[in-house]
Amino acid sequence: MAKANGVTAPEGYLAGGVHCGLKEDGAKDLAMIVSDRPATAWGVFTKNRIKGAPVIVTRSHLRSGAARGIVVNSGNANTLTRNGIQTATRMATAASRVVGCSTREILVASTGVIGKPLPIEKVEAGIASLGAKLKPGGGAAAAEAIMTTDLVRKECSARMSVGSKPVIIGGCAKGSGMIHPNMATMLGFITTDAAVSKEALKDLVKRANADSFGLVTVDGDTSTSDMLLIMANGASGSPCITAAKGKRYSELVDCVTGVCADLAKKVARDGEGATKFITVTVNGAKTDKAARAIAMSIAKSNLVKTAMFGQDANWGRILCAAGAAGQQIDADRVALKICGVTVFANGGLADDGWESRVTAKLKSKEIPIHVDVACGDGSARVWTCDMSYDYIRINADYRS
Amino acid sequence: MAKANGVTAPEGYLAGGVHCGLKEDGAKDLAMIVSDRPATAWGVFTKNRIKGAPVIVTRSHLRSGAARGIVVNSGNANTLTRNGIQTATRMATAASRVVGCSTREILVASTGVIGKPLPIEKVEAGIASLGAKLKPGGGAAAAEAIMTTDLVRKECSARMSVGSKPVIIGGCAKGSGMIHPNMATMLGFITTDAAVSKEALKDLVKRANADSFGLVTVDGDTSTSDMLLIMANGASGSPCITAAKGKRYSELVDCVTGVCADLAKKVARDGEGATKFITVTVNGAKTDKAARAIAMSIAKSNLVKTAMFGQDANWGRILCAAGAAGQQIDADRVALKICGVTVFANGGLADDGWESRVTAKLKSKEIPIHVDVACGDGSARVWTCDMSYDYIRINADYRS
Repeated sequence: MAKANGVTAPEGYLAGGVHCGLKEDGAKDLAMIVSDRPATAWGVFTKNRIKGAPVIVTRSHLRSGAARGIVVNSGNANTLTRNGIQTATRMATAASRVVGCSTREILVASTGVIGKPLPIEKVEAGIASLGAKLKPGGGAAAAEAIMTTDLVRKECSARMSVGSKPVIIGGCAKGSGMIHPNMATMLGFITTDAAVSKEALKDLVKRANADSFGLVTVDGDTSTSDMLLIMANGASGSPCITAAKGKRYSELVDCVTGVCADLAKKVARDGEGATKFITVTVNGAKTDKAARAIAMSIAKSNLVKTAMFGQDANWGRILCAAGAAGQQIDADRVALKICGVTVFANGGLADDGWESRVTAKLKSKEIPIHVDVACGDGSARVWTCDMSYDYIRINADYRS
Repeated sequence: MAKANGVTAPEGYLAGGVHCGLKEDGAKDLAMIVSDRPATAWGVFTKNRIKGAPVIVTRSHLRSGAARGIVVNSGNANTLTRNGIQTATRMATAASRVVGCSTREILVASTGVIGKPLPIEKVEAGIASLGAKLKPGGGAAAAEAIMTTDLVRKECSARMSVGSKPVIIGGCAKGSGMIHPNMATMLGFITTDAAVSKEALKDLVKRANADSFGLVTVDGDTSTSDMLLIMANGASGSPCITAAKGKRYSELVDCVTGVCADLAKKVARDGEGATKFITVTVNGAKTDKAARAIAMSIAKSNLVKTAMFGQDANWGRILCAAGAAGQQIDADRVALKICGVTVFANGGLADDGWESRVTAKLKSKEIPIHVDVACGDGSARVWTCDMSYDYIRINADYRS
């Protein structure tokens, strides 16, 4: 049968999504992603010092490095509520009954309003009803059920070979700011039918996250509930990747990172109020880390983001934001291209004519910014979106 | 004669402002602040790795720790231009002719568009004409001439005694975002008729800046041209404060900090598009430094600032931004007050009724936010403004 282009793309995964009563408009608000056999699993979590109850419960469940499934609700973050740990655990227990496994084999995620008690009975009833709806083509329904302010569903999959065996990696994500109603949260779920040891998976998820979701900023805020989870169930029959080294491992890292990066870019494109997708590339920094800091400083700058919304070739703000990162920059040799047009080089503005060329190109929905800071070989690329009136509308007028 | 409530409030200072042709609307764009006798002087400067030419020239001139005057233009930042050092030096030379001192005794500051060559002949002509207009009551004209997107002139003065001699401290500042046209820049100039050694002044300006301008954020951006300069000319006849210690020194630090804090708050109040002035106080942190990091994380959050604009008691965003600072927080004991009303305490929301009380108070132009993170004795207070549609309009639509 035809399978969806997401978490159910790999062999041995079922998924589904239903409305259980958390979202007032009747949209899907409960998802499950299940492996038909035990899978190794690991995750990375928000660094926010205030963590949602599902983050705490899932980190605890992951200690074994194994899982059978993930249960996720949208519409309520189950964060900063007095009985959050208890309700998050009850979600896992309800899902474990559907799957036929232990509570600790279920990972839990929640996203939506914070501080509001989770109506756990509704969620438990939803999970019970979802059991019959889990299917190999259910990835799209699950991807839909985890959305909050997202305007589009975010899914991706990719194929590769491990020791001549075809292997599939699938994923879905949500997030479009750290937003509405109280915060939106970035959630990412990756599935694969490759066989991967716990040790290798731990390393893999960190690397893949750093080079994908770690490179995206919408509004610079870190939510209490961010998480990226990965499950590897070996259903492809491919040889097990047991250690975080070697060619097979690197190829898997590249492929998973590619899926995560695709999802991360979809998050930036769907940023709250976004009208443009901005790619910031920095070359010539002392180190890759320095390059990333400079690129992030540009991507996070409200002044750069509002200028891009206004289709204003405001190169001064870009270079100023680059300098504000505190990393070494050779101000006499720094070079800047906006939309491929050289704007600034060798310590001064380009010759006449650049501005009309850039301004014409700024009408595009895709804005590449390149900065060469002329100090070394470090490079980085990050993604963001512009900042529009709608960002203010979405975030100021929610309750009115 | 009556003196203005700013840099000419202390004895022995003259100031003035004129239009020299940089601002197209004919508004004042050139200021001078002059001491009638040699003064000790020091400054603190932007940490941005890309520095405006005036920052470079003024830092060099300050090596002696002495100055006779400050020359400032608005409308052009003289930054990232090929001959910036030369034109900034020419400004100092022109001003030194008016004052009758050496080029190195003049400090230079510029603010406005970056990357555009400074029409130095206009500036030199303006400086020559300004000579005849410098006067003891000229502080207001100077404060007006340094404005860019500022809606109001920012001045302050205070009195104290040093060894029974009355001493006056005056100041002016500009800044309302890091903005229009390309960036706005925070500039602050403090004068006093106290006598202070170079060593004491170096320490004083760092302390005063840290506890005033260092506590303000409008949009989180650091301009290439930020500077705070202080001159102390001893015209009061008060005993010289020779070292950065002792009761007289601490009292002077407190008084100068008070003047700077008043100016810094005026900058936040005049933030681009601001409709509300927000004070964020954090108590109970591990250290004062940790408290400041938490308070700044809240004050810089676009989501908090847009919620305040929307008069939305969005406590989740505030606590989330607090957690995002990465500092220790006791999530089970954290407490939050908005406009003096307890919203969150002991791990959960306050009883019913808080929201209508807070929402009514959020109509005010003054919004106090208090967070107690329940980990120690560290505390801090920072200032910011809300984020409105006008912030986007000002920053997106400038060139259209």
